[in-house]
Amino acid sequence: MKATILSILPESQIIDISHKIEKFNIRMGAFTLASASPYFPIGTIHVAVVDPGVGTARRPIIVETTRCHYVGPDNGLLMLSALRQGIRHVYQISNPEYMLPRVSRTFHGRDIFAPAAANLAKGRLISDFGYEIYNYVFPHFAEPKLSGKKLTGEVLHVDDFGNIITNITMQDLERVRVQESSLLQVKFKRRELTLKLCSAYGEAPAGKLLAIIGSHEFLEIALNQGSA
Amino acid sequence: MKATILSILPESQIIDISHKIEKFNIRMGAFTLASASPYFPIGTIHVAVVDPGVGTARRPIIVETTRCHYVGPDNGLLMLSALRQGIRHVYQISNPEYMLPRVSRTFHGRDIFAPAAANLAKGRLISDFGYEIYNYVFPHFAEPKLSGKKLTGEVLHVDDFGNIITNITMQDLERVRVQESSLLQVKFKRRELTLKLCSAYGEAPAGKLLAIIGSHEFLEIALNQGSA
Amino acid sequence: MKATILSILPESQIIDISHKIEKFNIRMGAFTLASASPYFPIGTIHVAVVDPGVGTARRPIIVETTRCHYVGPDNGLLMLSALRQGIRHVYQISNPEYMLPRVSRTFHGRDIFAPAAANLAKGRLISDFGYEIYNYVFPHFAEPKLSGKKLTGEVLHVDDFGNIITNITMQDLERVRVQESSLLQVKFKRRELTLKLCSAYGEAPAGKLLAIIGSHEFLEIALNQGSA
Repeated sequence: MKATILSILPESQIIDISHKIEKFNIRMGAFTLASASPYFPIGTIHVAVVDPGVGTARRPIIVETTRCHYVGPDNGLLMLSALRQGIRHVYQISNPEYMLPRVSRTFHGRDIFAPAAANLAKGRLISDFGYEIYNYVFPHFAEPKLSGKKLTGEVLHVDDFGNIITNITMQDLERVRVQESSLLQVKFKRRELTLKLCSAYGEAPAGKLLAIIGSHEFLEIALNQGSA
Repeated sequence: MKATILSILPESQIIDISHKIEKFNIRMGAFTLASASPYFPIGTIHVAVVDPGVGTARRPIIVETTRCHYVGPDNGLLMLSALRQGIRHVYQISNPEYMLPRVSRTFHGRDIFAPAAANLAKGRLISDFGYEIYNYVFPHFAEPKLSGKKLTGEVLHVDDFGNIITNITMQDLERVRVQESSLLQVKFKRRELTLKLCSAYGEAPAGKLLAIIGSHEFLEIALNQGSA
Repeated sequence: MKATILSILPESQIIDISHKIEKFNIRMGAFTLASASPYFPIGTIHVAVVDPGVGTARRPIIVETTRCHYVGPDNGLLMLSALRQGIRHVYQISNPEYMLPRVSRTFHGRDIFAPAAANLAKGRLISDFGYEIYNYVFPHFAEPKLSGKKLTGEVLHVDDFGNIITNITMQDLERVRVQESSLLQVKFKRRELTLKLCSAYGEAPAGKLLAIIGSHEFLEIALNQGSA
C-alpha cells in the first residue's frame, strides 16, 4: 500500500497508526482509528482496512468530514471516527482511473484504497472518484442511544490491561447531566453496578471497579490495579 | 539501519516492507520482497536482510535490475525479485569507503548494507562499491523448471490462511498453454490432483481445493473457506 | 504521538526504534535506546516512553547531551544512553505552553513528550520548557562500578538468542587493562567462570561459554551455537 502511494505521490508522508487490529475485528479497528484521528493535522487522509467483505459487493468509499478524509471499505469501520468530526459527504469509489490497472480480488488496500488516498492527496476532489451515496453502512457501535436519562452504549474494545472501553464519550454523558465524580448506575450484561466517574484510577480503592474517561476519550469500566 | 541511512542522506524516505520474516527463512523473505517490490517507484533501493551466513565468507552484494537496486547478502534472498525485473549487474560490496568505520561481525545490515543503500541513493554508481561478480547464488526457488509441458515449481510460503504459495507465475503457466479456467494436473509430494485455475476462491465449492493466482501474482493452492 | 508531532511540525521525519520493549521494563528500554542512539545524526531528538510511573509525581524531562536530546520520563530510561554521550543539562518539563491543551493521566507520550520533542525540533531552547534539575534519577545499571581491578556490572537484557548482555563496554574493560583475547574472571550469581574475550562467537568451541563485545557495543556472555 505504501509503495502504491509513493508511486503516485513520491513526497507523501505516511504514518502507521496500527497493524495490530485482530483479523476481521471492525469494532477494534474503528476504536483505534477514532482514538488516533483527532490528533492528526487537519487535512490528513486516513486509510483504514479491516475488510472481511473484500471480493464481495461491499463498496469502497471515501468519507469527507469537517477535518479530514477517510478511505476504506463501506462496513462501518470509518464511521465511529467520522461521526465525531461531522460527516459531510460519502462517495463510492468507482472511477477506474484512480485504481491500479489490475484490481485483485483480495487486496483492495493496495489496488483501490491506497491509490484513492494518494490521488486525494494530489488534489483530486472527492467527486472525481465516483458517486455520492447516502445508504452507507452506519454501525450500531458508532453512537450510543439516548432515551430519557438512559444512555445505551456498546463495548468497543477490551484493552491489554483489562479495561472495558465503550462507545460513550463525555459529551454523551453531559447530555444526561453526568459530571466528574457523579455516581453512575451501570447495567452491564446482567449485573447492575453503581460506579463513580473518577478522574484517576487511584480514586477507587485497589481491586474496586470504577468508571473513567480514558486517554482515548471514551468511557471505560476499569478496576484499580487489576483487570475489569 | 535507518539511523545509518539518515546519517548519510538525511532526506531519505524509508519504508518498511516487513519485519515479520521468520529467522533464517530466506525463501519467505524472497517471496515477501518479490510481492512488494513491483509496486515501488522505479529507482527504489531495496535493502533486505535475512542472513544466516553473517560473519562467514558469504558476500555482501548489490543487484542492479531494469527497475531498481537490491542490497543484501549473496544467499539468494534478492534473486526471486530481481530475476522478474531483469538482472543487469551484480557487484560485490568491498570498498570500505562506503561501510561504517567499524564493521561488526553480526550486524552487516547496519554496517554494510544500509550505508551502501544510502550511498547509492546519494548518486554513487554500482561500480564504485567493488567488483562485478557472475557466480552469485541463484537459488532453486527463483525460477520454476520447464520440461515439455511439465512445469516444476517450489513452495515459497504458506500464508496465515493456509494457502500454499508457489514460485510459478501466470507468465510461466502461459508457456505451457494454461489459461484461466484450465484444469491443471498437479503433483504435490505424493498426491496427484486435478485443480481448476480459478479467478476467485468462491469458484470452487466450500472445502474444495483450487488453484489461483494470488494478489502477490504467484500460483497458489488454496481451499475455499479453509486451509489447504 | 506521531500525530501530535506532525501537527506541531509537519515536516518532521520520525523513525521508530522499537515498539517491542516489554511492559515496564525500563532496563530493556534503556539498552535498546543506547544501542541505536549513536548511529543517528547529530541533533536527533529521541523520545522514549517506558513509563510505569505515569500519573504519579515522576517528572517529565529533557536531557541535552553533546550529540542530541532525549525526552521522556525521569525514571532512568534515558540515562544509559545519555551518559555515554556526555550529559550537559537536564530540565524538567513544566511549561504548559508546550503540552497539549488537555493532559491525560495515562498518555504523557502523546500529551507531554511528543509536543516537547516537536517544539525542540522547531527550535525552542531546553530552557523554554521548565527548570534545570540536578536530582534526576540515575539508575544502577547506567554505569558499572570500578574498584581496583574489579568491575561490577549488571545484566541489561537477554536477547532472543540467549546472549546475556551487560552494561560493561570496551572502554570500561580497558580501564582494568582487559584487551581482546584476555581471559576474564567472571563471577555471575554464584558461579565463577574464566572466559576468553573473543572477537567472534566461533572462537569458542561449540557449546562453550565466551565473552564478546556485541554489535550493540556492550559486553555479553554467550554460548557458541547455543543459548547462554
